[in-house]
Amino acid sequence: MNQDLITIGKKAQNAANKLALMDTATKNKALIQLADDLIKNKDTVIDANQQDLANATTMPAKFTDRLMVNAQRIEDMANGLRSIADLNDPTAQIDKGWITKDGLQILQRRVPLGVIGIIFEARPNVTVDATGLTFKSGNAVILRGGKEALQTNTALVKILRESLQKQELPVNAVQLITDTSHAVADEMMKLTDYIDVLIPRGGRNLIQRVVTTATVPVIETGAGNCHIYIDKDADLTMATDITVNAKVQRPSVCNAAEKLLIHRDVAAKFLPTIAQALIDHGVQLRGDTDARKLVPAIRPATDEDWATEYNDLIMTVKIVDSLDDAINHINHYSTHHSEAIITNDITRGRYFQQAINSACVYVNASTRFTDGGEFGFGAEIGISTQKLHARGPMGLQQLTTIKYEITGNGQVRK
Amino acid sequence: MNQDLITIGKKAQNAANKLALMDTATKNKALIQLADDLIKNKDTVIDANQQDLANATTMPAKFTDRLMVNAQRIEDMANGLRSIADLNDPTAQIDKGWITKDGLQILQRRVPLGVIGIIFEARPNVTVDATGLTFKSGNAVILRGGKEALQTNTALVKILRESLQKQELPVNAVQLITDTSHAVADEMMKLTDYIDVLIPRGGRNLIQRVVTTATVPVIETGAGNCHIYIDKDADLTMATDITVNAKVQRPSVCNAAEKLLIHRDVAAKFLPTIAQALIDHGVQLRGDTDARKLVPAIRPATDEDWATEYNDLIMTVKIVDSLDDAINHINHYSTHHSEAIITNDITRGRYFQQAINSACVYVNASTRFTDGGEFGFGAEIGISTQKLHARGPMGLQQLTTIKYEITGNGQVRK
Repeated sequence: MNQDLITIGKKAQNAANKLALMDTATKNKALIQLADDLIKNKDTVIDANQQDLANATTMPAKFTDRLMVNAQRIEDMANGLRSIADLNDPTAQIDKGWITKDGLQILQRRVPLGVIGIIFEARPNVTVDATGLTFKSGNAVILRGGKEALQTNTALVKILRESLQKQELPVNAVQLITDTSHAVADEMMKLTDYIDVLIPRGGRNLIQRVVTTATVPVIETGAGNCHIYIDKDADLTMATDITVNAKVQRPSVCNAAEKLLIHRDVAAKFLPTIAQALIDHGVQLRGDTDARKLVPAIRPATDEDWATEYNDLIMTVKIVDSLDDAINHINHYSTHHSEAIITNDITRGRYFQQAINSACVYVNASTRFTDGGEFGFGAEIGISTQKLHARGPMGLQQLTTIKYEITGNGQVRK
Repeated sequence: MNQDLITIGKKAQNAANKLALMDTATKNKALIQLADDLIKNKDTVIDANQQDLANATTMPAKFTDRLMVNAQRIEDMANGLRSIADLNDPTAQIDKGWITKDGLQILQRRVPLGVIGIIFEARPNVTVDATGLTFKSGNAVILRGGKEALQTNTALVKILRESLQKQELPVNAVQLITDTSHAVADEMMKLTDYIDVLIPRGGRNLIQRVVTTATVPVIETGAGNCHIYIDKDADLTMATDITVNAKVQRPSVCNAAEKLLIHRDVAAKFLPTIAQALIDHGVQLRGDTDARKLVPAIRPATDEDWATEYNDLIMTVKIVDSLDDAINHINHYSTHHSEAIITNDITRGRYFQQAINSACVYVNASTRFTDGGEFGFGAEIGISTQKLHARGPMGLQQLTTIKYEITGNGQVRK
């Protein structure tokens, strides 16, 4: 095992023990100070970012935009920290409590997970977001960002740690792994003695690599092959508006719709209208034979299409014979993120919500609402597509676990 | 991949989809019928068990007792199923609901995990317990029991499946893997496409093998290196009663205490009394130099002792200088199951509960209360010592996850 990583792990665990005992007011004050110090030192960050950008000559423009940091973006990061200060502290919460038959008082308390590892790509804002969310929930964080953002991340973490030190708070609440080799990332994913959970943030390849390599428990986030199903008694205008919104409003994100299923009874009436609206918004349509008979502009879909998250202006259409056919298709091909039915029939809507095996199941609304902010959680660290521990948008609460605090007056077990 | 396992996985998933839609009354009725059919066919089980016992000639008596099934034990299994029928159905529960700023109604519902894999040793009662708990919570179960209990488990699962078939319920709600080779168990642990979570039930070696081999998420259960800490202002009588209870009432279980820490200020007064009480109950004492100075009958402890779960009448004693020393020692060596402080000082008691990093932290009560039944959960599938998803005694609720059901009237994202 890499000794540097073990040292980082031990320091994180020590910091986590202190953070677990820190009161909410202290954490909130610290977050505001972190925000202020970030802005005060923004030139250092912008200078470091210039170096990263200068090295990123072969990077596509889409990625250099994510890598780029300017005064406005630092202001946004600082405001993110301030808004996290405004959120409720989940670790100040007692979920419930009861008295047992033996007179023991049991409290189920929220407590931090401990040490959280975040593995991410060249998006420096994750450094600040993740630090804010993990700090507020009482966790220490170990960050491992993409090598393209190393100078920027180093500058950001230096400012955050110096701010903590100045405030006499545990500086190892946030640490950055500056060796950006794959080998060190792989070792980090196996640091079971020191890291309680790994959250990868980034594209599918990154997440797959973490899921297959890690022995530390992982919360899988972000894969979204989302479906819209238009039931036989849907409102056509609503169906069109929602489908267009879910597909085109921001096609690159995980809650955008990728597939459109239409009940056979209304396909002849609905598909030409919806297809035209999508085409007008620049969407390339693919589909099964039945769909192509109705709208010749639709290209043939391959088997691979049904399982693909495009993150692009592409949508694949299928005509289904029944509600159950739609449900079976979705449960088979979905990444279990977000799906929607458009229907006026309350029974069919509820049945769809119950039978679909995904984190978020909509009736008559766009899948684009799957988001911590839209849900009212205030901020999110990702959208979990797994079932264990966290499912759907992950706010501060999902960065905690529980503990039972039991108080008696001498009880022994009979 | 083993084709038989994939077939089992697919059947389980199909059954799980049906179970997820089954109402509580149907499930409860089925559980009562399963209990009745178990008793009706008890002779088949006892005959099968005789074969297993006849083959277990080299098994130590402690284990053959666990393997043995008689009429009374079948009655106990049936009563277990009936009591599970009486418990609340967690999947009938809506945790909470709210309306978002856009007028979407969001319900956070409890839903089954899906397919649960249970890997266990030669304890046939686990077959029935696990089936009852997973069925009631709407999950399908795949059982892989120890080879020593194969005939018994086969007979039990046959009765359960025939009962389900007779009731026209999905028989694949319960399946047994009858190939008891290690190779097949290892493949089961990697069946990520079909099994949502693995719960190993058994000794430390089994659990360690599952944790290191599985790619399916695991809930780790049962390791208990539990501590009792006697603070400087403890009540000596209470301290002695609780220590003796936690150590000797049932030394073989995971919530029995293995270590005793005593504050230096009261060690000279407390240790001789507590030590004598433990010795009178047949406990072998080990300890550090300071403890041995006070009670010469205490044998020297090795470094290994501090991390060892004995599951036996052995206890190791340490004298500590302060509350923080006790906390640091426990957080370092504990398996994070259950720990107790004996104190009359409310502030020190609360500090201990907050700073100790374990699932269950007691003030003035025996660690032996860490149990689903004692907590009022009614039945438990194990005691989780991990932080993700489930911590402490796991009842029906811990066999579920959540889903967001969102209902709108045409909302699209701006």
